[in-house]
Amino acid sequence: MTNLKEIKTVGFIGVGIMGNSMAGHILAAGYGVNVYNRTKAKTDAIVAKGAKWFDTPGAIAANSDLVITMVGFPSDVEEVYMGEQGILHHAQPGTTLIDMTTSSPSLARTISEAALTKGLAAIDAPVSGGDIGARDAKLTIMVGGDSATFNHALPVLKLMGGSIVLQGGPGMGQHTKMCNQIVIASTIMGVSEGIAYAKKVGLDPSSVMQSIGGGAASGFQLNILGPKMIAGDFAPGFYIEHFIKDLNIALSEAKAMNLELPGLIQAKKLYDQLAANGHSKDGTQGLIQFYLA
Amino acid sequence: MTNLKEIKTVGFIGVGIMGNSMAGHILAAGYGVNVYNRTKAKTDAIVAKGAKWFDTPGAIAANSDLVITMVGFPSDVEEVYMGEQGILHHAQPGTTLIDMTTSSPSLARTISEAALTKGLAAIDAPVSGGDIGARDAKLTIMVGGDSATFNHALPVLKLMGGSIVLQGGPGMGQHTKMCNQIVIASTIMGVSEGIAYAKKVGLDPSSVMQSIGGGAASGFQLNILGPKMIAGDFAPGFYIEHFIKDLNIALSEAKAMNLELPGLIQAKKLYDQLAANGHSKDGTQGLIQFYLA
Repeated sequence: MTNLKEIKTVGFIGVGIMGNSMAGHILAAGYGVNVYNRTKAKTDAIVAKGAKWFDTPGAIAANSDLVITMVGFPSDVEEVYMGEQGILHHAQPGTTLIDMTTSSPSLARTISEAALTKGLAAIDAPVSGGDIGARDAKLTIMVGGDSATFNHALPVLKLMGGSIVLQGGPGMGQHTKMCNQIVIASTIMGVSEGIAYAKKVGLDPSSVMQSIGGGAASGFQLNILGPKMIAGDFAPGFYIEHFIKDLNIALSEAKAMNLELPGLIQAKKLYDQLAANGHSKDGTQGLIQFYLA
Repeated sequence: MTNLKEIKTVGFIGVGIMGNSMAGHILAAGYGVNVYNRTKAKTDAIVAKGAKWFDTPGAIAANSDLVITMVGFPSDVEEVYMGEQGILHHAQPGTTLIDMTTSSPSLARTISEAALTKGLAAIDAPVSGGDIGARDAKLTIMVGGDSATFNHALPVLKLMGGSIVLQGGPGMGQHTKMCNQIVIASTIMGVSEGIAYAKKVGLDPSSVMQSIGGGAASGFQLNILGPKMIAGDFAPGFYIEHFIKDLNIALSEAKAMNLELPGLIQAKKLYDQLAANGHSKDGTQGLIQFYLA
């Protein structure tokens, strides 16, 4: 087991809407916080509160005891960890690394192995709960890694999350997040189809919601996103383009283990079509547009 | 508007597990109750409590002020209403008719029109909530018909239901139920795929549930049926064969209005396959067997 450095300073790479809230909680708890973001301006607010800017992921890593990454795509994760200006080349031995991006489980395992060879410890810890969960420090955090690193990082994770579960070894946090996205993909499709049917047949969809919103069809997607679909409100809680990224990861992992997921494949087809028609910046509830076009 | 008879005696056709509870509530409220069921033995218990047996649906109709039907398939509904020994040929003018079977919206409109020509008033009022909802008089009742008949029948519906909503004209109760089933179809598919992925990749699905059961994937299907899928408990809350019946109705109605429902089509394919492999008497959560076969 790697001997991990005591955590006094936390590096945070990827300070978007969620990252800003998350890093803010860590700063507020008294840790030193170092930040890097591709678009520097997004770090202005947290730097004004006392966080310290560094020019590269590697510089963040060299100056932090624990590094959190919250970036966009697996290719970004790869660059931030493996690149020449990246974390793995510059972190001091004993540094703890946590990727909170929703990314590829296979990549998480690769990073974990590469980290070990350099005396570092990396865990994967993707989240769900969105902007609001980040703001309220109520994120669901799904962790993959060894339990010593998990326990070492736990005090920091607790500053951001409500439910924090170690799901297994490296990559298992990402796999758990994939389970979440897989369930959601077909569920949104069902909700969209039910509401589209109601509209098309001349029912009042809000009245339909009154009948079906409390029973076996009920759930977050129907009860929270359904009313937005009915109102034609496609403002993003979660971007379609990010959802497509997640579904691609899930499909590729499923394929690798010979698991057929026809519902997921169908949902991804519809989202791809929407994205091709210019809807990638809509929220996931925008799926209903496929049916009412 | 048809002049409807005061409701003193209620006929109940189709006294299965749910029908028994529902008719029992009506009897307990002080109404006279007449019963008919294809398998006579299923009425023994309620007859022992004071309900009166008749030999045909027509005989029930001739001796009741309001007739409730709760049978299996649209073909059964057709026979019970339109057949020679059926309700429409034998009911006295002013009788109220309520079909609570989940059946075809088109058939509901046909029955409603045929009823009017004979001085009868028919509404469609399918339910959700299952055995437990029926037992606790907490069913969700989705009604299609004119508001005068709805209001006339309401005191009896209230003996069985919690949420009772008039959704529109004849057939609109059935259409609302279709919305419910359409949402559920793809949702179960998503839940099955998420849990199948968890099992296949070596996660502990109960631990995964701890992470994803409170967020955007949460809902009745994940939180109530998910644990049954994980445990391999396929005891029917709702039979796959009845669900397939409902999905066929939904698909045929969607087709008639040129509404493409790819998620529903996919879910129906999987259920058809399961049924062909001998699983039609499993509960709907049995869908996960498709993925883990």
